[in-house]
Amino acid sequence: MSADPTAAILLIGEELLSGKVDDENARYAIRELRALGVAPRRVEIIPDVVDEIAAAVRAASARYDHVFTSGGVGATHDDVTLAAVAAAFDMPVERRPELAQMIRDRLGPEFHERDLRMADVPAGATLDYGVTVSSTVWPVVVVRNVYVLPGVPAIFRRKFDLIKERFRATPIHTRALYSREGEARIAAALDAAVAAFPSVAIGSYPHLDALDYRVKVTFDGRDEAAVRSAVAFLVERLGPEVVLRTE
Amino acid sequence: MSADPTAAILLIGEELLSGKVDDENARYAIRELRALGVAPRRVEIIPDVVDEIAAAVRAASARYDHVFTSGGVGATHDDVTLAAVAAAFDMPVERRPELAQMIRDRLGPEFHERDLRMADVPAGATLDYGVTVSSTVWPVVVVRNVYVLPGVPAIFRRKFDLIKERFRATPIHTRALYSREGEARIAAALDAAVAAFPSVAIGSYPHLDALDYRVKVTFDGRDEAAVRSAVAFLVERLGPEVVLRTE
Repeated sequence: MSADPTAAILLIGEELLSGKVDDENARYAIRELRALGVAPRRVEIIPDVVDEIAAAVRAASARYDHVFTSGGVGATHDDVTLAAVAAAFDMPVERRPELAQMIRDRLGPEFHERDLRMADVPAGATLDYGVTVSSTVWPVVVVRNVYVLPGVPAIFRRKFDLIKERFRATPIHTRALYSREGEARIAAALDAAVAAFPSVAIGSYPHLDALDYRVKVTFDGRDEAAVRSAVAFLVERLGPEVVLRTE
Repeated sequence: MSADPTAAILLIGEELLSGKVDDENARYAIRELRALGVAPRRVEIIPDVVDEIAAAVRAASARYDHVFTSGGVGATHDDVTLAAVAAAFDMPVERRPELAQMIRDRLGPEFHERDLRMADVPAGATLDYGVTVSSTVWPVVVVRNVYVLPGVPAIFRRKFDLIKERFRATPIHTRALYSREGEARIAAALDAAVAAFPSVAIGSYPHLDALDYRVKVTFDGRDEAAVRSAVAFLVERLGPEVVLRTE
């Protein structure tokens, strides 16, 4: 794994594209990944179409260290994520006996043949039971660097939390500076800071509704000393008339 | 324009990928587009990197009827969307005198040379003043089927509303059915409905927290009679013990 790990989050579901449901899972995963030291670099919302999901999974798997899918895992016609992940890597789908057994045990009299669809996973997938090492917990299906998670937010979060320690990396440090002046007035100083601190990601965000400042400048990086130096550099350049505060 | 127009929404900004800001614009655009009869088919969150934005714009422009970008339009180093849209279509960037004049007029004594960056748009872009036909309103920059919108939510909404009537199409009708039984028990009937009504998009969404139902089934389509027939078909197949209600 790289020292500067990246991630993509692929949200699968017509309900998100039609506005019937608002995303909660990308929002959760972004915050958790950042706290773990992983930089999310792409989020996509994709319809329930095998070819589209497969293409997005293939591209993201090649490009980012970790890929998380959300949704499309279930017993109905619109649950095609596992088939699509298999297609992404030209793998067949195979029924995993331990998953089939778990479904039968869990559902008991409620069991229906259709539920076994959730036991059909890409051949060669690994089943990650996370920190629990318990066979009563439904595992996360993992294919290469792709983690297949369910779309129901409460279960998405539970599954993500089960495996998240696997992704822990060097922390990303964040600081902020609030400017009383607008973007155009601080842009030259920002350019100088960007040039002087290449390891620090510097962002500039105008706020129309804030009462006491006009722009929030953010500083992000894995080198904490460089992040602090970049803030100090910009404070020095802009001066106290411009800088309302830092945090 | 096709009778069944589609759209992609490209959100540009590190602040979304780092979790500093939650998206409001895709959420707004999805609901508005659906109400206009346009089907959103893809949403992407992309970092402030010219090559990445250009590749996404080029791909989306070729594939969907309308493409909306949000963010990366301003006076600082991280505002690269207009340059990226130009790169997507191998166009140079040129300063538009009418935009430069508007910036000078509007900012008055606050004007700074850097503000002119917002007047540098892809050569061949059209400026859409929307329904207002007023030269005091900042226009939407349009390149082919790509509409470049700002990231600040209040301005994004204002600009979108200015041009949205251009996209009005045949309405999409939506209905829903609430099932007391879980997905596996209704999946066969769902499959039959999917096969019988190819013009209707049928979705199945389990709800863990709902008190009185277990699955919400949704029906979407431009043919209102087909949508109603698909609902009636499934009600008939599942029977009153299973169907809690429709809406």
